Amino acid sequence: MTYLQKLQSVVKKNNSNLVIGLDSDIKKIPKCFLKYSDPVYEFNHYIICATKDIVAGYKLNMAFYENAKGYKTVEKTLKYIPDNLIKICDAKRGDIENTDELYARNFFDELNFDAITFQPYMGSDSIKPFIERKDKLTYVLILTSNPGSGDFQKLKAGKKFLFEHIIDKCVEWNKNENIGFVFGSNHTKEIGKYSKELPDYPMLIPGVGSQHGEADGLFKNLHNKNFLINVSRSIIYSSPRDTERKDFEKIVRAKTTELNNSINQKS
Amino acid sequence: MTYLQKLQSVVKKNNSNLVIGLDSDIKKIPKCFLKYSDPVYEFNHYIICATKDIVAGYKLNMAFYENAKGYKTVEKTLKYIPDNLIKICDAKRGDIENTDELYARNFFDELNFDAITFQPYMGSDSIKPFIERKDKLTYVLILTSNPGSGDFQKLKAGKKFLFEHIIDKCVEWNKNENIGFVFGSNHTKEIGKYSKELPDYPMLIPGVGSQHGEADGLFKNLHNKNFLINVSRSIIYSSPRDTERKDFEKIVRAKTTELNNSINQKS
Repeated sequence: MTYLQKLQSVVKKNNSNLVIGLDSDIKKIPKCFLKYSDPVYEFNHYIICATKDIVAGYKLNMAFYENAKGYKTVEKTLKYIPDNLIKICDAKRGDIENTDELYARNFFDELNFDAITFQPYMGSDSIKPFIERKDKLTYVLILTSNPGSGDFQKLKAGKKFLFEHIIDKCVEWNKNENIGFVFGSNHTKEIGKYSKELPDYPMLIPGVGSQHGEADGLFKNLHNKNFLINVSRSIIYSSPRDTERKDFEKIVRAKTTELNNSINQKS
Repeated sequence: MTYLQKLQSVVKKNNSNLVIGLDSDIKKIPKCFLKYSDPVYEFNHYIICATKDIVAGYKLNMAFYENAKGYKTVEKTLKYIPDNLIKICDAKRGDIENTDELYARNFFDELNFDAITFQPYMGSDSIKPFIERKDKLTYVLILTSNPGSGDFQKLKAGKKFLFEHIIDKCVEWNKNENIGFVFGSNHTKEIGKYSKELPDYPMLIPGVGSQHGEADGLFKNLHNKNFLINVSRSIIYSSPRDTERKDFEKIVRAKTTELNNSINQKS
């Protein structure tokens, strides 16, 4: 099964284009989880438990797990996510081919993530180990949601912006039809344009919620049905730190349902 | 002590601008190490033991350690490197500020690396958590040594190439004088130009050795005395896989001495 088939199947089954970003920081999770030997895993576990039938999948930002304990938490968390859901490795890697082969082995072959986010600056040979895995998808950073995204991404080189040159290269690289794009939700105009021109490229759209993406303008312009909206902090930290576990599940599910309905109504 | 002071001090003491890249792959290390509980750590340990008085430091490419066991290997390896030597975290990270703060905490505050390599695509707020640590250095990817480096890095935007726009931003960001540049060793012309124009920016130069950088042209053009040449595979895999441990140390030291002498004669 290709990534796109898996995506379309779970989006239909769970009626959801939402992925929850498990940016799980031990300093921010409710205190009721701190008594466990792996508090972050317990926290992730209850979020998955509360939402697995109303989301398309989960995105793990690897920065939150970059230590010996964290990698065990990732392994356990991934095992707990049902097989039909999308598992995105938000690692933003990009190195020489020899090095990216190791990242691909670890994130795709060992941990069994379905997709990875990719830094395009190092070019063609750099993306090769990721796109050689035909059943996996590589989301290439195109326009990011942060303030600094304007520094280089929208530099004009010839008739096109840098991010458009990257899109052109993606089209050239996409022999296995397993490349997607990351567009920050605030770039509504460009999302509109490219979701129309290249509707077969899955889009991963972060920045709705804590990063205050322009949600209404976004959906009006979104012609790509294979999009995923990522929401992290405004779901996983939606309850106060002194919340009890059973209330935590209810609050997380309610917030997820609310966001999901909002996406479904608008898109 | 700033990074630059530390760099200059060890370069002088050990008469070396060489860093060894510990790209240590369990599938490639001599078989004599496989009997240990952590073969990669033992391998790193003996390399450090054999070379610590004739190099400026070590670079750990994090791709080789991205799993639960690997992070313990990194911790142990870093503890074994003497305090006066440079420890570079070759992670090529670059994300939104909130995320990079976590990478900075982990790599700088917890693991106590002296420097990190950085992906500039996401711009100003993305580099902030790294350069806020005043005693640490951030090596920004400028021109990389791989074939794909030409895809975007040398796109011309206005009168300058993309990599030159990145250099301009680095100069703007460098309030704490803790930014350096990564230049692949094959980009001799650009190394010449920028090592002359911006001699205070430490340069990290990979690609000599296995990646066949043009070493002679490189040194003729190198005006920056704060450079570090990284060599990985052609030192650490310089002995056959059936080498015994005591021969391994001798071969690694001999190869390091040879490269070090070659750099010192030419630069």
